[in-house]
Amino acid sequence: MSVPVIEGPAFDEAWFAARASAGVRGLKAYDPGHDLVAFRRRFGNDVLVELGSNENPYGPSPRAAAAIMAQLEVLHRYPDPLGGDLKRALAAKHGVGVDRLMLGNGSHELLMLLGQVFAGPGTDVVFSRHGFAVFALATQAAGATMRIAAPLPRDGAMPLGHDLDALLEAITADTRLLFVANPNNPTGTWFGGEALDAFIERVPPEVIVVVDEAYAEMADAPDYASALGRIERHPNVVVTRTFSKAYGLAGLRVGYLVAAPGLVAVMERLRESFNVNGPALAACEAVLDDEAHLRMACRRNAEQREALVDALKARGLEVFPSQTNFVLVGFGREAAPIERALTDRGVILRPMGGYGLPDCLRISVGNPDENARLLAALDEVLHEVRG
Amino acid sequence: MSVPVIEGPAFDEAWFAARASAGVRGLKAYDPGHDLVAFRRRFGNDVLVELGSNENPYGPSPRAAAAIMAQLEVLHRYPDPLGGDLKRALAAKHGVGVDRLMLGNGSHELLMLLGQVFAGPGTDVVFSRHGFAVFALATQAAGATMRIAAPLPRDGAMPLGHDLDALLEAITADTRLLFVANPNNPTGTWFGGEALDAFIERVPPEVIVVVDEAYAEMADAPDYASALGRIERHPNVVVTRTFSKAYGLAGLRVGYLVAAPGLVAVMERLRESFNVNGPALAACEAVLDDEAHLRMACRRNAEQREALVDALKARGLEVFPSQTNFVLVGFGREAAPIERALTDRGVILRPMGGYGLPDCLRISVGNPDENARLLAALDEVLHEVRG
Repeated sequence: MSVPVIEGPAFDEAWFAARASAGVRGLKAYDPGHDLVAFRRRFGNDVLVELGSNENPYGPSPRAAAAIMAQLEVLHRYPDPLGGDLKRALAAKHGVGVDRLMLGNGSHELLMLLGQVFAGPGTDVVFSRHGFAVFALATQAAGATMRIAAPLPRDGAMPLGHDLDALLEAITADTRLLFVANPNNPTGTWFGGEALDAFIERVPPEVIVVVDEAYAEMADAPDYASALGRIERHPNVVVTRTFSKAYGLAGLRVGYLVAAPGLVAVMERLRESFNVNGPALAACEAVLDDEAHLRMACRRNAEQREALVDALKARGLEVFPSQTNFVLVGFGREAAPIERALTDRGVILRPMGGYGLPDCLRISVGNPDENARLLAALDEVLHEVRG
Repeated sequence: MSVPVIEGPAFDEAWFAARASAGVRGLKAYDPGHDLVAFRRRFGNDVLVELGSNENPYGPSPRAAAAIMAQLEVLHRYPDPLGGDLKRALAAKHGVGVDRLMLGNGSHELLMLLGQVFAGPGTDVVFSRHGFAVFALATQAAGATMRIAAPLPRDGAMPLGHDLDALLEAITADTRLLFVANPNNPTGTWFGGEALDAFIERVPPEVIVVVDEAYAEMADAPDYASALGRIERHPNVVVTRTFSKAYGLAGLRVGYLVAAPGLVAVMERLRESFNVNGPALAACEAVLDDEAHLRMACRRNAEQREALVDALKARGLEVFPSQTNFVLVGFGREAAPIERALTDRGVILRPMGGYGLPDCLRISVGNPDENARLLAALDEVLHEVRG
């Protein structure tokens, strides 16, 4: 017996997309590139080298696990919708009022909310080419127009870094938001405190400047400066941070923003009441107390990054300067075959075609063992492709 | 030395709100009512009776804790952006294809995304008065127009339940979404399978019908039927479910929707890639395997609900019929003083003023001990207010 079919609409993706908001019609679903869960089953943890997602190989402070264990008795309770304990700990750490803080399900959620709240059809959002992918997503989802500034030249001192002058020139009367990342993903590049100050002074105060500092804790260049010190004097400046990188808690999805209390109050209107889950709140609060672990992870990362940069340069590759836990590497040829050959050996890197850099791969800085296995696999693959 | 002040904008909440999207301008920030964390510190767990959030007093299956413990080694890794294992487990449980499933950071996120994707300025969204609060939030955030249908009469067989005829009459040519909850929060009421079928047949197929079934696992009325069995024949029907209620995992924030593959594909365009965190994915997959625990929690809830309903009726209160783990209770007078007096005794219930029912409180069904302490405190308070 056949099921009667409803006459009328097709109800396929095209039909639903035609009924979606303008911003969504132009978006594609996220493509993770690899099914990492399947890879883990195929290769096992002893073989697989995961250097595609800029995760912290030293993991979080052990206090994270202890805090989560203490949450196992209260999994049936909703998390604190205020996130009060974590926000108070962050306020103390950064020396700001609690009313300047907002928590997100990763900084990804906060960047999307910034777009949803302050951009929209008929407005512009400014950011750099080769900037963080979520800047474009947040703009498109809001139905706003992307105004993409060219980066600094590839053969200069800060190759493909943010060109702050070009960003200023891209601002129009319709610009509501401007996104920069410092240090930037996927290039690893950064700009210094003087440049930051000069830039902020020149941005019209009506434009909200979002400085994504996902990798800030790892930056140790003498000229690097966080924008956190600028938000009091410049209430149009927003800083986003994350627990996913230096704090080693990518699995928990917690980010935060620091901004003017008025901006936070408006953003809070759209925040989902329980957007950060219970174990995540507890773990983040706990790791903030362990500065020694954070410093250890950042120091080891800096050491390993330097060693990895040297090793990659010794192989004749183009290595971009980095203040993060990854390096962008140019191969002087299409990188996709290299990436595929590495994947077949269980070494996962991040392809850069989607970022407009098809000759590059982004390599997370692993621990010594991971980096050694990466380099061994890379030598095999480079030998093959170079014949 | 005083810091120079930027001339120009005020940068207060009103200034930022004026620059926000139309939907956000009309919203208020979430008001949790109580600072539960502060209450827990004030009263301690031995005194406090938390019956305000419809949490499951029996907790999740012990498999949740075990699954989370296994995640403690990989907190530095991003969660599976595909949520593949959990979606496959849900697909097997419900007998649907994986392409019909989408995971959310609670069903709250999915309801908001439905609004963001399919509603917007110039469109209508239909739902009932005294329906779930997030329906209004999702509509307002999208800048769409709320069309609110009157509920069934308070003195009828299903007091303040969804009036499905009134919902149908509220549909206009601009209606994109229609939200119903079955059973409904905060009334506890429900409608049966025959009424559901007749309703769906009469909704124009261009209107997406979202049936929020957050409490479905607890419903055991002979006439209750989930809309899950209708989505194949009616591709405009979407079902949302949650792990927060019967599964006892409110702390982890996981919901899911089941719908036409085309609708899921469009929604996936807007989903944040890591919207459900690692421990949450693992715990939900684990508890799906423990049907016995789920049945135990639902059976105990039904027993305790019946006893609580009897006890409240014996006190002369108006008790609404419920197929959930809470009961709506009318006090025949303004309930705020009663709620405050209970709070002072450490008994937290949910005030209903925000739902347009200022004479009611919503009482979660606790375990026998919690219910006994609730009733003892209530007797004291009723004695006081009745003089």
